[in-house]
Amino acid sequence: MVDTAPRTTSKQQAAKPQRSADTAPPKPASTEASAPAQSAAPAQPAVDVATLGRQLLGTWADIRLASRERAARPELQRIEGQPMAEHRERVLGQLKLLVDEGAVHRAFPTSLGGFDDHGGNIAAFEELVIADPSLQIKAGVQWGLFGAAVLHLGTEYHHETFLPDIMSLKVPGAFAMTETGHGSDVAAIGTTATYDEAKHQFVINTPFRGAWKDYLGNAAVHGTAAVVFAQLITKGVNHGVHAFYVPLRNTKGAFLKGIGGEDDGLKGGLNGIDNGRLHFTNVRVPRENLLNRYGAVAEDGTYSSPIASPGRRFFTMLGTLVQGRVSLDGAATAAAAMALTIAITYGNQRRQFNAASDTEEEVLLDYQRHQRRLLPKLATTYAQFFAHDEFLVKFDAVFSGEADTDDDRQDLETIAAALKPLSTWHALETLQEAREATGGAGFLAENRMVGLRQDLDIYVTFEGDNNVLLQLVAKRLLTDFSKQFAKADAGVMARYVVAQTADRAYHGTGLRSLAQTIADFGSTARSVSELRDERTQRELLTDRVEAMIGEIAGRLRDARRLPKADAAAAFNRNQNELIEAARAHGELLQWEAFTRALAKTRDPGTKQVLTWVRDLFGLGLIEKHLAWYLIHGRLAPKRAQAVGAYIDRLVERLRPHAQDLVDAFGYAPEHLRAKIASGAELERQDEARAYYAAQRAAGTLPVPEKSKKK
Amino acid sequence: MVDTAPRTTSKQQAAKPQRSADTAPPKPASTEASAPAQSAAPAQPAVDVATLGRQLLGTWADIRLASRERAARPELQRIEGQPMAEHRERVLGQLKLLVDEGAVHRAFPTSLGGFDDHGGNIAAFEELVIADPSLQIKAGVQWGLFGAAVLHLGTEYHHETFLPDIMSLKVPGAFAMTETGHGSDVAAIGTTATYDEAKHQFVINTPFRGAWKDYLGNAAVHGTAAVVFAQLITKGVNHGVHAFYVPLRNTKGAFLKGIGGEDDGLKGGLNGIDNGRLHFTNVRVPRENLLNRYGAVAEDGTYSSPIASPGRRFFTMLGTLVQGRVSLDGAATAAAAMALTIAITYGNQRRQFNAASDTEEEVLLDYQRHQRRLLPKLATTYAQFFAHDEFLVKFDAVFSGEADTDDDRQDLETIAAALKPLSTWHALETLQEAREATGGAGFLAENRMVGLRQDLDIYVTFEGDNNVLLQLVAKRLLTDFSKQFAKADAGVMARYVVAQTADRAYHGTGLRSLAQTIADFGSTARSVSELRDERTQRELLTDRVEAMIGEIAGRLRDARRLPKADAAAAFNRNQNELIEAARAHGELLQWEAFTRALAKTRDPGTKQVLTWVRDLFGLGLIEKHLAWYLIHGRLAPKRAQAVGAYIDRLVERLRPHAQDLVDAFGYAPEHLRAKIASGAELERQDEARAYYAAQRAAGTLPVPEKSKKK
Repeated sequence: MVDTAPRTTSKQQAAKPQRSADTAPPKPASTEASAPAQSAAPAQPAVDVATLGRQLLGTWADIRLASRERAARPELQRIEGQPMAEHRERVLGQLKLLVDEGAVHRAFPTSLGGFDDHGGNIAAFEELVIADPSLQIKAGVQWGLFGAAVLHLGTEYHHETFLPDIMSLKVPGAFAMTETGHGSDVAAIGTTATYDEAKHQFVINTPFRGAWKDYLGNAAVHGTAAVVFAQLITKGVNHGVHAFYVPLRNTKGAFLKGIGGEDDGLKGGLNGIDNGRLHFTNVRVPRENLLNRYGAVAEDGTYSSPIASPGRRFFTMLGTLVQGRVSLDGAATAAAAMALTIAITYGNQRRQFNAASDTEEEVLLDYQRHQRRLLPKLATTYAQFFAHDEFLVKFDAVFSGEADTDDDRQDLETIAAALKPLSTWHALETLQEAREATGGAGFLAENRMVGLRQDLDIYVTFEGDNNVLLQLVAKRLLTDFSKQFAKADAGVMARYVVAQTADRAYHGTGLRSLAQTIADFGSTARSVSELRDERTQRELLTDRVEAMIGEIAGRLRDARRLPKADAAAAFNRNQNELIEAARAHGELLQWEAFTRALAKTRDPGTKQVLTWVRDLFGLGLIEKHLAWYLIHGRLAPKRAQAVGAYIDRLVERLRPHAQDLVDAFGYAPEHLRAKIASGAELERQDEARAYYAAQRAAGTLPVPEKSKKK
Repeated sequence: MVDTAPRTTSKQQAAKPQRSADTAPPKPASTEASAPAQSAAPAQPAVDVATLGRQLLGTWADIRLASRERAARPELQRIEGQPMAEHRERVLGQLKLLVDEGAVHRAFPTSLGGFDDHGGNIAAFEELVIADPSLQIKAGVQWGLFGAAVLHLGTEYHHETFLPDIMSLKVPGAFAMTETGHGSDVAAIGTTATYDEAKHQFVINTPFRGAWKDYLGNAAVHGTAAVVFAQLITKGVNHGVHAFYVPLRNTKGAFLKGIGGEDDGLKGGLNGIDNGRLHFTNVRVPRENLLNRYGAVAEDGTYSSPIASPGRRFFTMLGTLVQGRVSLDGAATAAAAMALTIAITYGNQRRQFNAASDTEEEVLLDYQRHQRRLLPKLATTYAQFFAHDEFLVKFDAVFSGEADTDDDRQDLETIAAALKPLSTWHALETLQEAREATGGAGFLAENRMVGLRQDLDIYVTFEGDNNVLLQLVAKRLLTDFSKQFAKADAGVMARYVVAQTADRAYHGTGLRSLAQTIADFGSTARSVSELRDERTQRELLTDRVEAMIGEIAGRLRDARRLPKADAAAAFNRNQNELIEAARAHGELLQWEAFTRALAKTRDPGTKQVLTWVRDLFGLGLIEKHLAWYLIHGRLAPKRAQAVGAYIDRLVERLRPHAQDLVDAFGYAPEHLRAKIASGAELERQDEARAYYAAQRAAGTLPVPEKSKKK
């Protein structure tokens, strides 16, 4: 096990501000007026790093720690700058190592040597991003997509026939869903699987160039089989997209008859994965190779399915693959946490300019701009840790069968579609800000951030394009709205509310009425001190989602009666705002999770600091959308102005705790592997200061021309 | 010369919306109310692509076209995925090619075979980013930094002795300014150059690890000399940072005595450049190797300088190197333009989802969200093209001596510090948005965007960290303010204004009074239609800069009288807002330049479309800062809401012209080198649609299960 005790070595201690009074100077009168002192706070709260660290690790803490221990081993880690071909082979070897160590079977059935542990499996998997995102994603392709498709879309025959070799990596495989011509709109893929009644076979065919399978991990080199998604056609009827197990290559690595492909070549990142293209020319597979849990074809070609509606069947099949989105949320959050650990550690040691003193240069993190750049991102990362753990608990409940109704599955998918975009975008923004905040040093591969950013870039468009996912969320919110107010008039609509508050966020039906509690809210929020009130933040955040969806629903109310093209045009004219509403919903989910986590925090000092972090997150969201609150009369101009002033105050308060807050993430040097976060900068600073101090003491420091003239 | 006629091939024509009526559908009643029809506009304006293209090329159009022609040649282009060592050698070879073709001497004195053409030199140099940013920046290191330092900081002896070999690349050199410990704060570097009166030599020394020179192009491998910046010490007095010509390596590539170094290794991008570290242990160079234009040491060790103030001398020396910032502004703008050309061309061909029809899928660029993601960035890119050309004219006037007062130089530096941050950040955001807007295809190296983004990443922190530059701008604005209102009371302050409007932006002194024209502006902006009025936009944008600076100046008014540490703390508490004010100033400069360019546009259709683009840029800025306008009473809530609605309207109006607007940038396929912008996507789409149309016509398309059940 990795030691989770606070990693505050002597170096880090030294880097912490020694003058806590200096870091919280009195505010000038004008600012003070709008941001009253927080009298309830203990004078000098301290963070209990070890306990907070444990809380951040969440429900599967021990599994995460074991996986982190693995990720700390050099043989599983990325070698920066390794050529693509070698990197691909290295990652394949790392996958074999994971198999040898029994590290990848957790989600598979106990009958096949697994543990049927879905939440724990994802928790362990996410931590691999520390070692190399290519390792994480290639493992995800093999066991989370290829293997999981066989597991969730197949039945006993497929499990017994195919899973053992998939689990052992004897058969590396591709998940052949996306095509060059269709990514987000999977239902419209062109590949066909036509049943041949005479030979009891499916004929897999690629009808045109746009229907080539594309961007598939394991397709360019290593894959010897694939789960291929194709339009199932039997007796002249297209039953929609189904999955088929299709062998790809022989033991020598050559394509089987009728199969061809291309290498996708170099990518912006994740070059340890051999992404490629595949096409099929009348490739025949036995009838049994249809993964037939949700749709089967009898010998005579008769189609049957336990789900009557083709649309619902399609979404049910796709829904079984939600774990990809779950795991990206966790991995992206981990990457953001690593970036912040590196940048804040460095920002706590690095000095530049000496405005306040003739001899001492300022530590970067003492600059307001530096605090404003990094600390709000730290607050968001905290929110994501807590939201992700709840999300994973929900996922585990669905996949373990503990809470697995249709509603549960739909809720899970909506949460996934809301959280994955936010956290993957946040990871890119944070890696970039951390890179910029560490200047030229941040641009060197040896400091990790550029490589992580390159690898995580694709996280925002794969496993569901972020914008498309947010649109799905928005449609769900609109549907919930219309269900609840199907017969309501415009007046009722204006008061409608989305139910994503408190503990209902994860367990509710999607909508509930909160109108009475927020009635005339604009006039009840009487002073700026209310901004740090939990209820105020909740109401502001909730109200915005509700009002946005309500407004759009009102505008789209008559669209249903329009001809198809006109209805689509009306929807399109609201698309941008819909996606913004979905984002607001996701932000609210994160805020609620953070607030619930706060309720569970016991240590008073930690609770106080964490409350500031939560407030910074909540008020940061309100500041980001401040124009909306002003336009809609939720905040008066004076109060709105206080939001920014209070955020300035919060970052100043949090600054002395910044190192503790990143240390609590628990990444050891062998996880970070960034030279600038190793303490080397502090050594250099100390050496330079000692040099000048000695020269000054000895009287050998050359006199500055300027002072000589005086 | 590259042909600048419109590149609308048959493929691109086909990709343009065939149904212009469809792309401007009637607005729903609620939106219509707040965005009145623009009755003055011609019904169907058309863009004259060739003429607009010529306007975008700017003052040095022919030189740019010649440089683009060069950048279109494969031997000067990047090979994606080339290993670092090979890439470095390739780029060195490309530099030699540039020398052989006489392409790099434009800025050097006519006496040495140059042309003394400073603006033209930068224009040509910027276009090299098309071929490979590593080529651009390595050329910049050799001739724009190393060579330019000898040219601008040295005198006749240095020009005659060193420049010929620098120009011919016989001596590749490093620009050794930045140290591991000091980047932004150059004045505090640790390297010393102590004059030895006995031997008439300077002794260059690195006193501690933090004073190693770092991140220097040409330092790791190719550099055989360097211009080294060091504290000049003579007779026990430190005269501040000066530059010295220092040989580094012998002909075999080995370091000379006393010199050592390290390779910076792999970076996030620009890996065709051999960045590295250097350190000096009592390395002796002749007295004559001091580049002595602004500070000289006589044989006896007596220091003299034409500039008495050490501070002003330092900034004058640094100011001669402003061309780096100038050229990054242009290169970053070119990169953004390329990214948008790729993403918009693809977005005009790619189809996904068919909400509006049973058989036809929608073109991506018909989606509102897609328009909202790309078209505002296109508008900003246009603004940057126009602002950059004016900037370059100003630069040329200063460096040619045509308008070279202290004020001119200071204005130039302020403009550089304002524009370079905006355009380099914009390039990264645009490359990322374009990458995401093209999905998985955008992540492939073959489509250019990821590589360009990796290379341009460092543009935001080198040649002046963006945040530090903006702070310089803010300080200048504060200084101008305090000069003007030194004796004013708070009431006058509240009405003060910054002078960056109209043609005064580039030629004015920095501040002028506009108070009378904006008096009571809030109540005079009576309707939403005013938002598209040029004066309204100008007043809103100008007023914000003025008011922000005025507010901050008011808060800092008494800080001068405080002890140093307290004054610094007071400044620090306003740092974030100061930087935002500087950004607003830069945005205003861009808007003014766009508006001046618009006045020069003659073709009515082009002028109409370009007016919409300018309005989209201006209103986009106002939307971004909408909370500020609301809080400060400049816009009433209803009017503020109209800003977003009008932007929706503008992107819809501009959508049919999007292809023309990117075609006008004039990049040919050999510049873009992106497969997805080659027309391949349109071919795939056409093939797929033809396939289904033929099946439908023949009655062989399998019946969907859903329709069968009806």
